[in-house]
Amino acid sequence: MDTKPIVLKLGGSAITDKTNLKTARPDVIERLAQEISDASISRLVIVHGGGSFGHPFAEKYRINDGYKNASQIIGFAETHEAMTELNKMVVEALIRHNIPAVSIAPSSFIVTKRRRIEKLDINIIAKLLDMKFVPILYGDAVLDSEQGFAILSGDQLITQLAIAFGAERIVIGVGVDGFYTADPSTPDAKLIPRVSLGEMRTLLNRAGKSEATDVTGGMKQKIIELIPAIEHGIHAVMVNAATANNIRRTLRDQPVRGTVFIKE
Amino acid sequence: MDTKPIVLKLGGSAITDKTNLKTARPDVIERLAQEISDASISRLVIVHGGGSFGHPFAEKYRINDGYKNASQIIGFAETHEAMTELNKMVVEALIRHNIPAVSIAPSSFIVTKRRRIEKLDINIIAKLLDMKFVPILYGDAVLDSEQGFAILSGDQLITQLAIAFGAERIVIGVGVDGFYTADPSTPDAKLIPRVSLGEMRTLLNRAGKSEATDVTGGMKQKIIELIPAIEHGIHAVMVNAATANNIRRTLRDQPVRGTVFIKE
Repeated sequence: MDTKPIVLKLGGSAITDKTNLKTARPDVIERLAQEISDASISRLVIVHGGGSFGHPFAEKYRINDGYKNASQIIGFAETHEAMTELNKMVVEALIRHNIPAVSIAPSSFIVTKRRRIEKLDINIIAKLLDMKFVPILYGDAVLDSEQGFAILSGDQLITQLAIAFGAERIVIGVGVDGFYTADPSTPDAKLIPRVSLGEMRTLLNRAGKSEATDVTGGMKQKIIELIPAIEHGIHAVMVNAATANNIRRTLRDQPVRGTVFIKE
Repeated sequence: MDTKPIVLKLGGSAITDKTNLKTARPDVIERLAQEISDASISRLVIVHGGGSFGHPFAEKYRINDGYKNASQIIGFAETHEAMTELNKMVVEALIRHNIPAVSIAPSSFIVTKRRRIEKLDINIIAKLLDMKFVPILYGDAVLDSEQGFAILSGDQLITQLAIAFGAERIVIGVGVDGFYTADPSTPDAKLIPRVSLGEMRTLLNRAGKSEATDVTGGMKQKIIELIPAIEHGIHAVMVNAATANNIRRTLRDQPVRGTVFIKE
């Protein structure tokens, strides 16, 4: 039987400068490509976020609210185009490091229904993995069967891909060291090294009750998206992708400062 | 009922410099974007060729021969990546001219079987057209269910799309004025303004018998791919996309020097 794949998320906050429109961090992307190459994982699916290539356009044109008026049409086109621009940088860096990365555009084969993936056809991705390619997906502007269009986040994608492939684990590279007791930029915030499924649910309940103090440290949506994978018994490791060697070590299952999300 | 779409092919020989590796013709791409914008077609699908972005890589790694050895894997990745690079230039130019162009990557949703499209799922392209987007496809390196991978040409795509959508007509922009009695660079070559289905078949028969003198003027494969569309009663107009105003005029159904391929 084939090895179970690892699903790797490269967060938009790690590979882009979120404070400047359409500004990538080419040095980080280059280093990550080197680390992924060094880790030499036999079956790997990569999903990257949008950072300053995705969110500013998606918000400007309110893509995730769905189709409201004709002026959004060019905005949808721009949002998708900006995402392919970032994707190109990631894929090119990986190929330079001899990784046979093949971009798979979510909007070319996935339709959502009220922002949720309606049906995930994994045929082409599975065949790419069998042939030793590394499929690269990304958060994207996609068509939606009920609201016209929507944003399909990389976080929704990693969980759905991990479940569909029965992934060995999920590795989430973000711009901070992991999951904190509060916003990581506040002095009292403490890194939580291990979060169980029960604790994830409790956190969400508390987050739901108090919108003012986000007890998930700004990671509420990530936790919501991750839960189905954890329920399926797939654990996730969240580490800082901006710190050298973290992604390489985590892919190799070596200890790294970060947070493990696990069923029990 | 919705208007039937026009399927427009932008040939690689028009939008790239085929004599220099990965060299686009940004001035031609920019002008074509302007002409397509001016033509203001309500339902339009665009397919572009690879030119110097596609063919050199596809040939170097023998992608169309299918999977033979592991060294082709990175070559497939490079071929697809080069095509997305050209696609990006085309899409960006169209968006600059206010055309809501959305790239649809053939390799993300099409698998061939012995180099032929196995099943064309037009759901997303149809929905894009309904929402007034302009889907942009391209010749691409795709997975193949029998030989591992293959090249899916833009010429195969335009016919399959035209048939699937019952297109009004096909417009083919190439780097010469149309279809000639011989290689257009030879002094005796004459432009043929109108070619019937019967004549296309006769030409192919003669081309098959004498490989030395190509009676299709180097367009044998284009004729082969076009025939099913003509059989379906969809006519095609081939014009020089490198000549200003040709694409705008042809899209508007105005007379242009070129060749019409038609059933009878």
